[in-house]
Order: sequence, then structure tokens, then C-alpha cells
Amino acid sequence: MTRASRSDLHREGLLDPPGSPELSHDGTGRVRLRFLPLERDVRVPPGVTVFDAASWNGIAIDSTCGGHGTCKKCRVRITSGSVPVSRLDARCFTAEELRDGWRLACMAAAVNDVSVEVPPLSTRPKAATVGVGRQVILRPAIQKRYVELSEPSLQDQRPDLDRVLDALDDLELRADLHALRRLPGVLRSADFKVTAVVVDDVLVDVEPGDTTARRFALAYDLGTTTVVATLLDTSTGTPAAVASMLNKQQPFGADVITRISATMLDPSALGRLRTLAQETLSALSAEVCAEAEVDPGEVYEVALAGNATMTALVLGIDPEPLGVAPFVMSTASWPAVKASDLGLSLHPAAPAVVFPALGAYVGGDIVAGMLASGMDRDKRLRLFIDVGTNCEIVLGDGERIIATAAPAGPAFEGGAIRCGMRAADGAIEVVKLSDDDVGVQVIGDVEPLGLCGSGLVDAVAELVRVGLLDSSGRLLSPEDAKEIAPGLADRFRTVGAERVFVLSWRGIEAAESVYLSQRDVRELQFAKAAIATGWTLLLEEFGIAPGEVQQVLLAGSFGSYLSPASAVRIGLVPKLSVLRIVSAGNVAGEGAKMALLSMQERAGAAALLREVRYLELSDRPDFNDRFVDMLAFPG
Amino acid sequence: MTRASRSDLHREGLLDPPGSPELSHDGTGRVRLRFLPLERDVRVPPGVTVFDAASWNGIAIDSTCGGHGTCKKCRVRITSGSVPVSRLDARCFTAEELRDGWRLACMAAAVNDVSVEVPPLSTRPKAATVGVGRQVILRPAIQKRYVELSEPSLQDQRPDLDRVLDALDDLELRADLHALRRLPGVLRSADFKVTAVVVDDVLVDVEPGDTTARRFALAYDLGTTTVVATLLDTSTGTPAAVASMLNKQQPFGADVITRISATMLDPSALGRLRTLAQETLSALSAEVCAEAEVDPGEVYEVALAGNATMTALVLGIDPEPLGVAPFVMSTASWPAVKASDLGLSLHPAAPAVVFPALGAYVGGDIVAGMLASGMDRDKRLRLFIDVGTNCEIVLGDGERIIATAAPAGPAFEGGAIRCGMRAADGAIEVVKLSDDDVGVQVIGDVEPLGLCGSGLVDAVAELVRVGLLDSSGRLLSPEDAKEIAPGLADRFRTVGAERVFVLSWRGIEAAESVYLSQRDVRELQFAKAAIATGWTLLLEEFGIAPGEVQQVLLAGSFGSYLSPASAVRIGLVPKLSVLRIVSAGNVAGEGAKMALLSMQERAGAAALLREVRYLELSDRPDFNDRFVDMLAFPG
Repeated sequence: MTRASRSDLHREGLLDPPGSPELSHDGTGRVRLRFLPLERDVRVPPGVTVFDAASWNGIAIDSTCGGHGTCKKCRVRITSGSVPVSRLDARCFTAEELRDGWRLACMAAAVNDVSVEVPPLSTRPKAATVGVGRQVILRPAIQKRYVELSEPSLQDQRPDLDRVLDALDDLELRADLHALRRLPGVLRSADFKVTAVVVDDVLVDVEPGDTTARRFALAYDLGTTTVVATLLDTSTGTPAAVASMLNKQQPFGADVITRISATMLDPSALGRLRTLAQETLSALSAEVCAEAEVDPGEVYEVALAGNATMTALVLGIDPEPLGVAPFVMSTASWPAVKASDLGLSLHPAAPAVVFPALGAYVGGDIVAGMLASGMDRDKRLRLFIDVGTNCEIVLGDGERIIATAAPAGPAFEGGAIRCGMRAADGAIEVVKLSDDDVGVQVIGDVEPLGLCGSGLVDAVAELVRVGLLDSSGRLLSPEDAKEIAPGLADRFRTVGAERVFVLSWRGIEAAESVYLSQRDVRELQFAKAAIATGWTLLLEEFGIAPGEVQQVLLAGSFGSYLSPASAVRIGLVPKLSVLRIVSAGNVAGEGAKMALLSMQERAGAAALLREVRYLELSDRPDFNDRFVDMLAFPG
Repeated sequence: MTRASRSDLHREGLLDPPGSPELSHDGTGRVRLRFLPLERDVRVPPGVTVFDAASWNGIAIDSTCGGHGTCKKCRVRITSGSVPVSRLDARCFTAEELRDGWRLACMAAAVNDVSVEVPPLSTRPKAATVGVGRQVILRPAIQKRYVELSEPSLQDQRPDLDRVLDALDDLELRADLHALRRLPGVLRSADFKVTAVVVDDVLVDVEPGDTTARRFALAYDLGTTTVVATLLDTSTGTPAAVASMLNKQQPFGADVITRISATMLDPSALGRLRTLAQETLSALSAEVCAEAEVDPGEVYEVALAGNATMTALVLGIDPEPLGVAPFVMSTASWPAVKASDLGLSLHPAAPAVVFPALGAYVGGDIVAGMLASGMDRDKRLRLFIDVGTNCEIVLGDGERIIATAAPAGPAFEGGAIRCGMRAADGAIEVVKLSDDDVGVQVIGDVEPLGLCGSGLVDAVAELVRVGLLDSSGRLLSPEDAKEIAPGLADRFRTVGAERVFVLSWRGIEAAESVYLSQRDVRELQFAKAAIATGWTLLLEEFGIAPGEVQQVLLAGSFGSYLSPASAVRIGLVPKLSVLRIVSAGNVAGEGAKMALLSMQERAGAAALLREVRYLELSDRPDFNDRFVDMLAFPG
């Protein structure tokens, strides 16, 4: 097979022009990917790679190099839409293959709608690509060993456990009671040919025959709003299935503070919140196991990343001290916990790795996120922002890491917004203004019902861009608006006494439409000012100007779907090229996966607790002044 | 206070004559002790000390020296009956005190019925006397520490757990999830003045205020027939309450083999046996806690000693391989087990120490018994015999220890004996023959209903003594009997075709009476021959003659109540002075207590596994010949 020459490719218009335009996009809107042969559709912000889009959605693509194009395993074929040929593609594929649409998924940034054919997994890899370009050597805690043992006799009365452990004498193991319960029956029913199931240093089971190929683990991102479960095949490092659902605690309130308040008002609320969280985890485990045709008893380990409150609640720990000053956790690191302590019916002896937390508002989800995005090892100056009701911000340069939390309030979740709603079917998630029209993308491609966080940010950013919202955050009067954008002036209305901008008509009255109100703009200003104050103070601690930041990672189920261009426009992130604003995906869940795939990475999460400095903002005398400075939109 | 001179005491007839006659007894019958002010009556074989009789029955007497008379703490007053003054008493008490009945309980061998006044516990001791004269320095796994912590602030946001652990920085602790669940609420409700509850290296709880005085543990002897629970106050090392009951597994059969068979015939039997064992443990824990007015949540640790089958069943482990050749255990040593794994509702995080086993038929009860009787450290040549359906035999000299198991069959439990019954109310437990009468002692002092093991041994031994049973085990004919003992000849009858000896008339027909049959004698011969074969082979391994044995410890709920004289007479033990045959009490339960009172002793139990050699009898070619040799009664 001869590789394509650069001139061949140029001639055919396949090769990208200089300047990494394979990443070129304007940082707005969404692209749609259809994965074949599964026929699974997913929608992501432009610039996300095909590999990441697949991985976040539980679609397994081989990869062992961390997404650097060196392993050449993540070969996919673009069957419709176009993905420019990267320099690395040119080295990996023949001209004919490139013409046929073959690309490396890790290099293939999706900048328009595409269909992607994913070949079946070929090899048993030694590494996997997880998180934000992290190559993880597969050293999971779960190990299986097939052994054929000699049978006992009056001359060899060794206890069953000794017989098994003697055959595994390179490991220092202790046995779980569950394994002992199974041992006598399984050994004898299987003629002493069994598979030992080991998790870390514990023999958790023996199974008849050779079951070494079946070893699964379950990674949870336990969010306040959304809970995501990824079933992992630890033998390949690839996802077997992914599912997400709303946290069943929702009836107790949208954010952690309302849930903490519930426990303070009603002694029975803690128990009920715990049960609801556990029911959420259980429903997801049932769903992913069914989808991947995995028996729950084949899931031998669980990892869970959640904020401090969610973690406390699911473990039945009183969260009150997290919710009131001085904001104290029960513990930073968790003791040995079993999956059954989380209400899960997986393997009865399965342990659960619960991510440690840095503080009451920089929880295990952020520690997992830092792990997944390599905040402790990437030498670039990087800013990590997990956008949500509580916004966690981390700044690192490979030498130092500093973290803080900013109280952004519920605007990003659609809370306290007149037409706000969660990012569910019917929510406007993308807004683009032209001279005389408002273009919207709606989740589920249905009639708009409301406005979710990314739509809110887009709407405000677009109004700022065209000058219909001034830098102080004031919506123009209908008269002033008519001068600037006559085609949009009709959308400037009042609902009650309040000035609004109609995004999508649902009748002739503005009150019936999906609109953005003056107060909504103020809410968003408060939210983004809190975040901007946070990263400004972190940058000051480092003595660095905002423009020097080399990469901004927008993380979390909301942040990952935020339009980078709009984030820059409203000043939520430093003013940088949109190409430096990277959608990092569900990094909490990715960190949980890494902990399951690699004992080293798991140790890395614990090490982060020692390496990261936590900056408490709530007692800083300069916080309020900075906050007020940050309310305006950048010029 | 002046001590009494020896001559004073001689004059008053208080001092014992030379030759340790304070231990003088003929090794038969029972003595009754009434403990005041509790008004608790107990009955023990003669020669048992007042201290041991109290301890076995949960009556606390101070003692820290191991029963050697040096601590002088075990002062009691004999208020009726007589106990000779020991040499040590003479050194500890004034003549007036001695006249008033004051004695050291550890030196006061009960040889006749006495009433004993026990003073309340005076001091907080550093050691306790447990087992067979074992002094145990109190170093229990359970520790409590009262701490007054600084309250958190924005300048000191240490997590609650760190705050507690920093105050206990001489300990290397990890926390149980239960402690974390309690931590936030307890710290704040108690103004950060709390008691940390530590078991071994685990923080299991925090309690409001100072609860350091309340720290209890529960020791179980899980027997096939009888289960004994001792609630221990680990702050003093003394029992707070003792209770015993029949193992609720009884309906599945009297011995381990029938219970193992049940699990082989019916897949649901294992679950039911487990539940029944756990219900037995739970009923006992409720009883001792109620009696001692201890909240179950104040019981922070449990120790359990049981044979290999009972231990497997209560933990839900298939016992089948224990019951069939080559007799294999699932494990010798147990993993970390919690009290809740035993079905107990004590402190939710209470661990359970489950005694390890040497073999399928030398179980955790025997390891505990060896610990309690100091088999690993006493320099004397000692033979330990736990008499029961399965009889465990251990020989040690402080250098070497060797153990074996002999299948004695059910005779000692009253099984396969025509009028046999368990040692319960109505059972003849003592038999003495005179020229023309049969004297019996009946448990509960009621009309005789049957014959328990010790009564069976007594009856046979007495018939041998007066010559009514020849050394081959044949009951004389009525005619021959009339010549030897005319006053007893009327008791030689036949029931069916079988020759019997009537022990107690219950009507005019022999068949209605409580009697000993020819076949009963044969059953006992088989049982004692199995045991004697066992210790004979052990002595041969050591190259030592039976007469050289310095002490025989009769252990277990049956063995401890066996008449030493009768045991010698039928050849169940080597032919030695009855003073060398010592009733060791419930040594399994005592060993369990030791493990709770001292981490060192607990480690000693694990060390025994390495030190003791196990001799398997079932595959010895010489076993059967030896067995036949041992059937006859000694001349």
C-alpha cells in the first residue's frame, strides 16, 4: 500500500490548506453525526472530533495513543458530508482510501453534518483513548485469571481458598466473603477449572470455566441534573453502552442548595434523596447492561464522580455543612465503599471508587474532570471551566494548579429565566441572528417550547453582536432597535412591564412566544460575572493576563454544549480565538472511566488532592468589586 | 492490718494441711455455688474454682493476675459452706477476715456446696483473668477517645473527618462509611465535643459527649448443640452478662454430619441453616444486652468461635466438602467480616472476629480453646480433650503442639442411647452406686427423665468399679450380679431381648424406667475408644507414655461437666490422679473473650495456625487395630 503524496492530494482538493483548517469553524451552532452501522445520531458543537463524539455516546472506536494519530487504530470512513484530510491522514491512508472517505477519527474534527462508518473493534488493545486526548494504558483493577487446579486429597487437604491463591501467587490477595461463599460449589462443579475474579487486591469471585473475556465496569457521572452511566469493557477500554437520565432527586429542587435545604427542613428528606439517587443509578445500570447484553453480575467495579453534595446524598451523609458557611465536607477522600452501598445490584462484591473532592464546591466531579483533561500534566496554560449553577474553575500550567468555585446561579440550567427550560426536547439550543430573522436550532427538532442555557447564551451574544443589547446589558427600545435592525424591530415587545425580545413566535402575543426578557439578560450577566470573577482572580494568582491562556476547556453537560463564540462574546471566557475554546465533553464521566481502566490514573486522582490549591472566594474582600466590574459585556 | 500467722490458722483449723488439699476431691459428683447478692445458683464439677464458676456464668469478679494469687483482687466471702484457707489466702487476709470467710476466688476450689458473696468491682483494671488461668493485659481492639475539637471557619475548612483524625494523630485510622454518615450531625449537635469510637484501625463512629466508659463486645461460642454468648465490658475485662441456648439448627439434626447432609439433599437447606444460626446469635445478643442494660449499639465488636461446619453455615458457605473425604475447608482464616454478616443488629459498623480453623474437624472452637488454655505457652505436658460427637484432641508441651480429631459419635450427647437425652432438666448427670442403691443427681432437681452424657459415663464407670460390668463391657447376668451386689441385683432386667441396668424406677416395669442397656455400654465403648486411640497416637508422636501427662483439660460444654474419676475409670483419659484431670470450662467462649480483650491474644490465635501440626487419623492404616485395642475398660 503506497501512501498518497501531498501533491496528489492537493490536486484532488483533499488536503487541508496550511494553518490546521481541519479545525476551522466559527464556534457556533451544532453539527450532527450519524454513526453507522448503528444508525445512531448525535449532535455536538463544531470542532469536536469524530472520536470524542463517538466516545461520549458509548460508540467504541479503537484507539491507544491518546488521539495523537500515532496508533492509527481509530480508522473510520466518512460516508456522507466532508471531513478535510489531516496531515496524519495523508500518512496513514492511500489516496484511494482517502477518496473513499477513510480518516483517523481522533483527527477528524466535525465541522458539518457527516455520516461515519465505524469498523468493528479489531485487536485487543493495551491502551485506550479517554477524556481530553488522554492515552490510558489498560491496567484496570479488574483482573481475571483462568486456572486449572489439582483436586484435593487426604494428602493435600489445603483449604479451597489456599488452593486458588497458591495458583495466583504473583498477587497478594485477600478474599471477599462472597468469593468464599461461592468457592466450594464452583470449584467442584467446574472440576477445579475456574476463573478467579480479582479487583485490586481482593478475590471477589470464582467463576466456572474460562470467563476471562468478560470483565465490565460501570462509570457514573452523578450530576445534580443529569446522571450518565457508561458501561466499560475493561478488556478493551471501550464503552459497551452509555445511558443518561435526569437525576430522580429533581422534585426536591433544581440545584444542590435547594436539596440541602430540603434535608434541613425535613428529617426524612435525606433518606428519600438517597433512595432517589440510588434509584437513578440502578435504572441506568439496568439500561446499559440490557443494551450491551451484559449480566449485571459481570460488572465487577463501579466508579462514581459527583459534586460534594450529590456524593454525600447518595451515600446517605447529611449535606447540611456543605450548604452553609463555612462550607465543610464530611471527608475529602472516601473509605472503601461497595457498589451495594450505592444501592446497585451488580456483582455482590463489586467495590465502588468514589472520587475524592477538593472542597464543598469543588467536588469529585471536578477532580475527575481534571484527571480526564490532564490538568496535572499538560504543560500549556489551560483554564478549565465547568459551567453550571455552581461553576468550578481550574487554572493549571503543568506546574501549578489552582481551583475555585463561583456561584453562577441557575440561569445556565434555564432557572430564573422567563422562558427557561432544561436542555430537553423543545429547548432552543442555538440562536443566530440575521438582518431580518432569528434562526434557532431546537433539541429534538420540534416546535420551540423554551430556552435552555446554550440558547440563552447564544441569544444574548447575538443581540450584543448586532448591537441590540448594549454593553451594560440594556435591551434597546423598540425605536432604537428599528434604526439598527429594522427587520428585527417587531420582536421588541413588552410582557407585563418588561421589555423582551421574541425569539420564536407561538401566536400573535409576545407573552405566548419564546422570548428573552430584560431580567433574563440580567440573570445571565450575574452568572457570567461570577464566573469571570473566578478566572480573573485565578489568573491574578498566577500573575498572568487573560490573553496568555492557551486553551479553555468548557466542561460538563452544559459547558460542553456552549457555543465557544458566544462564550467569548458575553465574556464568560477570556477573549481568545474560538479555536482555543474546546468543548471537553462530560469530563467527570471520562475521569470515572479512567479510574476504572487504570490503577495509575486512579492514584493520580488521589494525588490531585495534594497538588491542587483551593482558593475560597466567599471571604475575599475584593470579590464584590471585581464582580461588579465583570457585569458588562466586553466591547 | 496484720496477716494471720500459720500457727494461728492451724490452731483454728483454717489452714489446709500439706499436699494442696484445697484441691482435694474424689472427682465425682457436682457442687453447687450460690453467688450473692445476685442469688444466682450454679453447679460445677468439684475442684472448679469459685472464680471460674463465676466467670463461666457471667458473674464479674476482679482479677488481673491470671489466677495466681498475686493481684489479690479476686476477694470474695464464703458465707455458707466451707472453703479451706490456701497458703495465699493466709498472706492476703487477716485471721479475722479469714474467719469471716474471705478467700481469693482464684484459689478457692469448690469441693462442697457454698454461698459466695461477691463485692462490687472496685478498680478499673489493666488486666483480666480469662480462660484456664490466663492473665490478659487489656488491649482491646475497641478504643474510645473523648475529644473537644475547634469549630470550622472559613479559615479552617478542614473536612469533618480530618478534624477528628487530626485529634487522634497517634492512631493510623481509616473511617467506616457509617462513621461518616454520623459525623456531620453529631459534631454539630454536640458542639464538637465528641467521643471517637475506634475498633482496631477503623473509626466506626462518633458519639455526642463523653461515652468513653461504655464499650462492650460480644463473645460467641457457636456450638453444634449449644450456643453461648458473653457480653464483655472491655473497659474492665469482666463479663456483663452470659446467656446460652440451643442452636436453632437442631431440627436439621444433632451433629454436624446430619446438617451437612441436609444441605446436600436440599438446595434451600443452606439458607435456612444460616438463618437459624443467625437467629440463635441474635436471640442471645438481645438477651445479654437486656440483662446488662446495654444498648445493642454500644456493642462495637463480636468474636465468634465455632467448629468448621458451624462457622461455614452461619456465614452461608456450602459445608459439603467438610463432610466428605478428603474433608476440605473453604478457608483456614476468614476475611474481614462484620457483625451484620452474622445477622446481628449491634453497632452497624461492628466487625466480627471469626476464629480460624486448623482443619475440617479441628475448627475455630478448638483454636479458641487452645488459646484460652495456653496450649502454646504452658511448659507442662498437657492433653486437651474437647469431648463431643466429634472429639478434638490436642497435645502440647510448650514446644510442640499436635492436634487431631476423633469421631466419637453421638453417645456423649445422649444420641443412640436408649434413655439418652441432652443435658437438660430431667437428665441424670451424676450416678453413684452403693451396695444396695443407686444415687443420682438430676439436672433441675426434678424427676429423672433420661440419661445425659456425664450420667452415662458415670453409670458405666460405677458399674465397672463395683464389678457389675466386666472389662470387655458385658453386663453381668442377674445371677452373677446377685453374687457380687445382692442389693442391686433387682435392677438387672431385660427390655425386649436386651439386658439392662435400671438407674431410676419410674414404675414397676423396667421399660418405663431410666436404664442403661447393654447396647448403650457398647456405644460408649466405641466413643471412648475413638478418643483414646486419638490421644494414644498423639502421645506416640511425641514418644511419651500416658502416665507422663501432667494435666488433662476436659473442655467443651460436655467435657467440662464430665466426672474426672469416671473418665479415668472407663479409659476416656489416661490413668492419672483425678487432681490432674481439670475441668476447663467453655474454653471456646473463653478464647473468644480473649480475642476481644487483647489484640495480642488475637494475634496469638492466628499464630497457632502456624504452630500446630494437624494429624489426620482417617487415612492411618493402624487406626482400626488401635481402636479395637482401646474398646476394653482399663483393669
